Amino acid sequence: MVAKNENFSRLQGSYLFTQIAQKKSEFLKNNPNVSLINLGIGDTTLPLPKFISEKLAAAALSLGTEEGYSGYGPAEGDPTLRQKISEVLYHGRVNADEIFISDGSKCDIGRLQVLFGKDVSIAVQDPTYPVYVDGTLLQGVNQPIVTMPCTPENNFFPDLSTLPRTDLIYFCSPNNPTGSVATKDQLKQLVDFAKGNQSVIIFDSAYAGFIQDPDLPRSIFEIEGADEVAIETGSFSKIAGFTGIRLGWTVVPKKLQYQDGSPIRDAWLRTISTIYNGACNIAQAGGLAVLEGEGQKCIKELIAQYMNGAHQLLAALKKAGYEVYGGANAPYLWVRYKNQDSWTSFQELLEKSHIVSTPGSGFGISGEGFVRFSAFANSQTMDSAVHMLQVHPMLLT
Amino acid sequence: MVAKNENFSRLQGSYLFTQIAQKKSEFLKNNPNVSLINLGIGDTTLPLPKFISEKLAAAALSLGTEEGYSGYGPAEGDPTLRQKISEVLYHGRVNADEIFISDGSKCDIGRLQVLFGKDVSIAVQDPTYPVYVDGTLLQGVNQPIVTMPCTPENNFFPDLSTLPRTDLIYFCSPNNPTGSVATKDQLKQLVDFAKGNQSVIIFDSAYAGFIQDPDLPRSIFEIEGADEVAIETGSFSKIAGFTGIRLGWTVVPKKLQYQDGSPIRDAWLRTISTIYNGACNIAQAGGLAVLEGEGQKCIKELIAQYMNGAHQLLAALKKAGYEVYGGANAPYLWVRYKNQDSWTSFQELLEKSHIVSTPGSGFGISGEGFVRFSAFANSQTMDSAVHMLQVHPMLLT
Repeated sequence: MVAKNENFSRLQGSYLFTQIAQKKSEFLKNNPNVSLINLGIGDTTLPLPKFISEKLAAAALSLGTEEGYSGYGPAEGDPTLRQKISEVLYHGRVNADEIFISDGSKCDIGRLQVLFGKDVSIAVQDPTYPVYVDGTLLQGVNQPIVTMPCTPENNFFPDLSTLPRTDLIYFCSPNNPTGSVATKDQLKQLVDFAKGNQSVIIFDSAYAGFIQDPDLPRSIFEIEGADEVAIETGSFSKIAGFTGIRLGWTVVPKKLQYQDGSPIRDAWLRTISTIYNGACNIAQAGGLAVLEGEGQKCIKELIAQYMNGAHQLLAALKKAGYEVYGGANAPYLWVRYKNQDSWTSFQELLEKSHIVSTPGSGFGISGEGFVRFSAFANSQTMDSAVHMLQVHPMLLT
Repeated sequence: MVAKNENFSRLQGSYLFTQIAQKKSEFLKNNPNVSLINLGIGDTTLPLPKFISEKLAAAALSLGTEEGYSGYGPAEGDPTLRQKISEVLYHGRVNADEIFISDGSKCDIGRLQVLFGKDVSIAVQDPTYPVYVDGTLLQGVNQPIVTMPCTPENNFFPDLSTLPRTDLIYFCSPNNPTGSVATKDQLKQLVDFAKGNQSVIIFDSAYAGFIQDPDLPRSIFEIEGADEVAIETGSFSKIAGFTGIRLGWTVVPKKLQYQDGSPIRDAWLRTISTIYNGACNIAQAGGLAVLEGEGQKCIKELIAQYMNGAHQLLAALKKAGYEVYGGANAPYLWVRYKNQDSWTSFQELLEKSHIVSTPGSGFGISGEGFVRFSAFANSQTMDSAVHMLQVHPMLLT
């Protein structure tokens, strides 16, 4: 028969969140009466604001009418939605024709690898969202991956002076999993570093909407000159509860070029029109609703609910003496359990506190010793989590 | 800066339907008062049946409630939808856990390449849907692609006895672009050929719902033993007007193995959970509605409308003496214009008859001399097309 793509052997046995789901099922099988407190996968749990669900429903109904029906849209997305993202989220810093609508950041991160092929060198933060690495490996990239340790010791920003040049630099801020946010000054360093090295930054801004501090940058394009060195992915998933609806975007600025001088943007358009076919039209109508004045008001309230939970958990963990990061401008908390590896802490949290977390080592070797708590929970769940963590302070040791 | 993925240079300058859209825009710029008759891209035009749009709307509204909200679904799709596809479309021939829901066949065809990597050899029908080849080239496949001519001379079924072995065989029936449908006997030959050669068939069944003749096979899995050699992609796009909603599926049978004996199904699950994140939950609820009794009734009427148009156009073309194929069990008509290359015929149809077609040569060298007409038009459009073709019989020569 046919041979397996040899690149599969370079991936871990299974995707991190698949592994966690298995451990969870196993536990529930042996403890069928326990109700678990889910702070594991970063999955939204609060219902959509009515304003948005009603706009989605209206778009669906309209497909049942002659005037409202539409078939294939452009692979690059509804022009009105691209324009609105440019205005509302980027304040005109990037143009509508540099914004490409997708079925979510994760899917676009998979496709972005196609732009550069298998001979690129890449750098990722450590810890990091696994998809940057896994997508790269599946594409057959054969150079060793450079990791940029981001730990409490360096305030979660890599020491760029020690880094070798790579073609691509993946950077996520607000960061998944550490919950840290790069400052403008730090992003400027990153942009300068990329310019000096002729690298391309792939900036993941999926959590930008959670930033509370007005001085922190929500986009790499707030940095002068970033449009010559950066691609940015964005998402409606976490900011608007669209994880199941699937809607995101990627910004590829016109100024960004390959070494042969051709625009990377054109190759991106070719890629998505060849192996992709645009995001769901109903989902795109939902995206438009999110960007209306009323929609923005609604999702600010949604985000505030999650951030209240994050602040509550952060305060409780700090009060109990845990070493904890994030949770202020991001929906993730990053907690160090001294002298214990991440999977042991994960298992202990599961068994003793009935809390599902994510083991930090699943995000890279610099994540070892940490676990990640997601704040995508309703207030009841958060109350239970705080309670259980207080009941079982032995985890603190 | 960074180098371009060298595989882009192996693609044509632009995607076929992008080229057509450009020619169309150019013509309309010079002739702003002409209203074009669109028989080009195979894009659905009739509104969704109310039964289905209302179910979509209900799913959207339900996301605005605590009970109805859902975040990430499984990457492989809603279990209920997988079960329904198994029952309604496959009559239990494949199991629910062999069916993987996607955002459309085209996107899955892009991802399927990941299963086999860049060292595979592939065969495609000629003419063929461009995505099989383009997706393969983008993945970096470096072996020459074997083409299987499918022409009126061989009744649109390749002479398998002359074909070399390849790892993969792409096969689309009902065929895009020729509108031909393989018989059970022909598909049995294909399955036997694949078994003898230890090849994997990738069978595109996107147009199965248009088959009118009950003796013609709607799935490769109607052939005994196909589950050891075939993957099948399917789609809600054309049969239910979901081109803009984005919903399809891929069947990877458990019996299908790599040469190392491991199930291809497991690698597929790894692929989609790594670089994909599931289809839109609202779209999946729409898919469920399509598969209900009432939904099946509605889409049969929808298909009947398109097929009436196809039959009308087929009859008119035949009466006028054109050499025409397809249009009986598929929504495409394949017309030979003697002694004229496809792009010239395309341009002539555009300028003289104001009809947008698709040049056959865009589908491969055996398509040269043909144009494809899509029957995805309402009856008014079809009437205009028939009228214009009668007015300008000079195209016949």
